[in-house]
Amino acid sequence: MRNIRLTIQYDGTDYLGWQKQAGTDRTIQTITEKALKQILQEPVRLTAAGRTDSGVHAAAQVANFKTNNPISLAKLQYGLNSLLPDDIKVVSAKNAAPDFHSRYHAREKTYQYTILNRPYPDVFIRKHVYHYGIAKLDLSRMRAAARLLVGRHDFTSFRATGATRSRSNVRMIKRIGIAQKGDLIIIQVTGEGFLYKMVRGIVGTLIEIGRGRFPVSSICRILDARKRTSAGPTAPASGLCLLRVRY
Amino acid sequence: MRNIRLTIQYDGTDYLGWQKQAGTDRTIQTITEKALKQILQEPVRLTAAGRTDSGVHAAAQVANFKTNNPISLAKLQYGLNSLLPDDIKVVSAKNAAPDFHSRYHAREKTYQYTILNRPYPDVFIRKHVYHYGIAKLDLSRMRAAARLLVGRHDFTSFRATGATRSRSNVRMIKRIGIAQKGDLIIIQVTGEGFLYKMVRGIVGTLIEIGRGRFPVSSICRILDARKRTSAGPTAPASGLCLLRVRY
Repeated sequence: MRNIRLTIQYDGTDYLGWQKQAGTDRTIQTITEKALKQILQEPVRLTAAGRTDSGVHAAAQVANFKTNNPISLAKLQYGLNSLLPDDIKVVSAKNAAPDFHSRYHAREKTYQYTILNRPYPDVFIRKHVYHYGIAKLDLSRMRAAARLLVGRHDFTSFRATGATRSRSNVRMIKRIGIAQKGDLIIIQVTGEGFLYKMVRGIVGTLIEIGRGRFPVSSICRILDARKRTSAGPTAPASGLCLLRVRY
Repeated sequence: MRNIRLTIQYDGTDYLGWQKQAGTDRTIQTITEKALKQILQEPVRLTAAGRTDSGVHAAAQVANFKTNNPISLAKLQYGLNSLLPDDIKVVSAKNAAPDFHSRYHAREKTYQYTILNRPYPDVFIRKHVYHYGIAKLDLSRMRAAARLLVGRHDFTSFRATGATRSRSNVRMIKRIGIAQKGDLIIIQVTGEGFLYKMVRGIVGTLIEIGRGRFPVSSICRILDARKRTSAGPTAPASGLCLLRVRY
């Protein structure tokens, strides 16, 4: 059986996230599986590296599926892109090793969060950033706080409740990069895996620190507290994008 | 009386262009004048540097209006941005000289046209580029052709019919820059003024040359012909943006 690996790009604005859900067709998985079924003439099950939440984007989600259909990869990609809506596109289709699993074999994922930090919004990127115009954020404070988050920690305080509980809330953050590009603040968080809405909890907290409402050192207190209420708010989905998955 | 100069940014996707039209509210002018009226409590008439067409964007349209209202510029900008929809925003509001006229006094305008030249589209910028995936465009051919367009010429062949006839079809193109950024081809055309859909006619022709269907020298023949049918097609509105107006 063939194991095919797709790299998928999507604008999550109008979707309820990656994962299939009962009662709605507005998920990336549902729509992509439907297009695959139409091309392959058989139902297939897509497994993705990360189940992005409602409204979250992906520049390079990785998903794999198995099929016996001998279709060429070029035809598959072209066919999918013809059937898929404007806000979901396949960037590449490749043959993978028979045992390749897009989630279990992911070594690290990088999420990118983009903040537009100026008084007025930008019409062109309005759906792909979080417009934060209330105060100027202090990048050196945010960077110092980010450094305290890198490493293996219990991230309970940054994890939204409501989703299925993980066995452990300990996760490893490998790197956090914070760059400035004009009025944009671009935060890249790399880790092996993340808890539910964890990146957005981290960004919401870094914003509180950047605007001076929390001290830089509050990160230590927040990590220790293991309580969601000790951290900052969950930053909006619009600014978040699954940037890269490494295997 | 105060003469106020606004710099306005808009995503033209959902609009019928800048200019007010009978029978529709979906123009940038109509919606912005409506917001101004609500703030100033009097009707005002906005004059713009360039009347962008249906679907065309602006990064920095300049428009002025007269009022006796003593409102501060900061309040005006903030109030407008609160009332305006997500796809129209005021980047700046400034006092202008009493005789300042955004159209008559414009010394030069720069339009930017963005082509995404790869087989599959990009979901994030899909509304702000022209996705051209049929063939790889040859930039050196396009640049050579662009050089032949710079200067003062009769641009009848690049001008769409249908709009009000100008007295003369002679226009001066000061510069055409063609840059590559990954899979993007970014064409900037600077001139004193342009005929109806002239930039899109130029881009459509440069694409024909870039893909090898027209020779570079065809520009001379097309300019001489003074017939719209001699040039390439009008490139789609989605890729065009009024980038800058100089006074």
